Amino acid sequence: MSGWDYKSAGIDYEILDAFKRACQREAQATQDALEAHGLRLAPQVRGESAFVLEGRDEFLAHVEEGLGTKNLVADAMRHLTGRCFYHAIGIDLVATIVNDLITCGALPVCVAMHAAAGDSRWFEDTARAVALARGFAEGCRLAGAVWGGGETPALPGMVEASTIVLAGSAIGRISPKSHRITGDIRPGDQIILLASSGVQTNGLSLCRALAGTLPDGYLTPMGDGRLFGEALLDASHVYVRVIADLLAGGIVPSGAAHITGHGWRKLMRSNAPVIHRISEPGSIPPIFQFIQHQARLDDRQMYATFNMGAGFALWVHPDQTEPALAIARRHFRAWRAGECVQAGKRKAVEILPAGIVFESDTLQLR
Amino acid sequence: MSGWDYKSAGIDYEILDAFKRACQREAQATQDALEAHGLRLAPQVRGESAFVLEGRDEFLAHVEEGLGTKNLVADAMRHLTGRCFYHAIGIDLVATIVNDLITCGALPVCVAMHAAAGDSRWFEDTARAVALARGFAEGCRLAGAVWGGGETPALPGMVEASTIVLAGSAIGRISPKSHRITGDIRPGDQIILLASSGVQTNGLSLCRALAGTLPDGYLTPMGDGRLFGEALLDASHVYVRVIADLLAGGIVPSGAAHITGHGWRKLMRSNAPVIHRISEPGSIPPIFQFIQHQARLDDRQMYATFNMGAGFALWVHPDQTEPALAIARRHFRAWRAGECVQAGKRKAVEILPAGIVFESDTLQLR
Repeated sequence: MSGWDYKSAGIDYEILDAFKRACQREAQATQDALEAHGLRLAPQVRGESAFVLEGRDEFLAHVEEGLGTKNLVADAMRHLTGRCFYHAIGIDLVATIVNDLITCGALPVCVAMHAAAGDSRWFEDTARAVALARGFAEGCRLAGAVWGGGETPALPGMVEASTIVLAGSAIGRISPKSHRITGDIRPGDQIILLASSGVQTNGLSLCRALAGTLPDGYLTPMGDGRLFGEALLDASHVYVRVIADLLAGGIVPSGAAHITGHGWRKLMRSNAPVIHRISEPGSIPPIFQFIQHQARLDDRQMYATFNMGAGFALWVHPDQTEPALAIARRHFRAWRAGECVQAGKRKAVEILPAGIVFESDTLQLR
Repeated sequence: MSGWDYKSAGIDYEILDAFKRACQREAQATQDALEAHGLRLAPQVRGESAFVLEGRDEFLAHVEEGLGTKNLVADAMRHLTGRCFYHAIGIDLVATIVNDLITCGALPVCVAMHAAAGDSRWFEDTARAVALARGFAEGCRLAGAVWGGGETPALPGMVEASTIVLAGSAIGRISPKSHRITGDIRPGDQIILLASSGVQTNGLSLCRALAGTLPDGYLTPMGDGRLFGEALLDASHVYVRVIADLLAGGIVPSGAAHITGHGWRKLMRSNAPVIHRISEPGSIPPIFQFIQHQARLDDRQMYATFNMGAGFALWVHPDQTEPALAIARRHFRAWRAGECVQAGKRKAVEILPAGIVFESDTLQLR
């Protein structure tokens, strides 16, 4: 890996995942509180991308998420080119929150922004600050949600002075209750992938490290007429309308996954003991070819980290494949990528054309 | 002020508040989305501490909040004394979120944690990491809420390597709808203050700067047998049970305020055009006397920044003062501090014994 792994960039997923599991254990012990609210935990919810509570007539869903380090790229590109990319960053921030939320079938009702600057002077660049606010509002519109408040502290000594940590949360609802996407994926279910816009919101720390080693950094041409930094900053797709239209059309997928951290290993996020066998991973967009070539990563490392052109996955019963594809294609490029097969209790992701197998021990989120 | 103002510490509330207002304008333009969800914005909600949506049978409330820089004090104290204060920090984090939420009468249902480290090795100190998780769970128990997920990224280059930015969000419900605290405060309403545990979660950047100038820093004795750093780290009170018991007892306050950033200016957070006239501000706890003396701040600066011993305020009809006090005192020290009087359209906070008047232009949150 010669320095291109996440550990050398200060990110050790094993340590982070261990803390996540400790939090899940402590969180488990708090759930008695729900009875007094007339609610209960939805079955099998711990470790999912959204937290789901069951009420009498509907489910409530809650997501807390962060953008990661993508806006550091926007800052660098503004410095290099004078262009402001914060409208896209605002959309990215909403996307990273609501694309998690919809994996359970919840439609986002309201989204809040958390923007923690290292210095309040960050907001003195009003063009940038207003672009961020407008992008966030545009993301909310794409998500069919209202922008519901937020928090904008300055945290000197904690956040680097020139930057801002972007995060947020959303409330969603699943109504009627039959619209819940349970993750109860069965052998025979078909896997549909929805195109991504590019790296979207994951793998950015690695991309930043890569830019630091290129003589022209973010200004390196990728060979398709675009610059590396420019392509990195394409706004993420917001997949809410696909889920909303599927549910409205009577199609409740058996599973859904937002392909972000852990790359395609996220395809086995559900508990279902099946092999997710991909025969059509889709063509690899130029940005990933560029990263792979420049960082000298092998296919396995790329699929373990990046979305590789597929930002969201859906699982449907074989009978629903064509109607689901038709609905998804109203909004984004979408294709039938493979199917689920049974092999005892084994859970894995197989990407056949690339000869890659991710066993379940490569994704420990529970 | 000789260097003790927030601007010199990288925090300019005027710039931050200007960005907040820009966000509120953009957010306003997204609210058409609610109709499709069968919801509407609760009347007069923009600029309040919680975002409130009106459904058919209940209100939903959403809060996104951050802890600020308090855990930097915990880190420094661990370095100096070997003691770990992260259990208290976990409670603080929940408190700062849910104490905002309850100002509208919502009881928290679930709370999510966002813990963004500068380096994933932060979590290698498992005693500290587990104390944080346990404290957060304890905070949820005090709030009568379930811990519902969260996010724990590592953000090298964005968050300082040795620290962690703590934030989170909560969903609350107001049910029945008559339990909503509207902020419709009337002349004659009585002001009840609830004791704080100390600085709770505001004014910490100033306290950190102060520690940096004291020869013994956080280890400076305050004269009451305690050290400055130790007193700063007392866990915040979680006021949820007071609100829950008041509502269950048939008392719906006309207003409620969480006294955090902007100190006692927060007493005029509601739109009500009244003078909040305080005749009994309460005794000033040793921590604030120490800060005031050491930082050479005048009374006005202190009340404009710190909670000064009162962490939460309630407004009730005069007939309800005694029963409300009796309920509040089941949980915390509480006292009748003053009352609201009319003076045309003027809105202000008067702290009579200290001779302080804050006019409404000293708090621009809308």
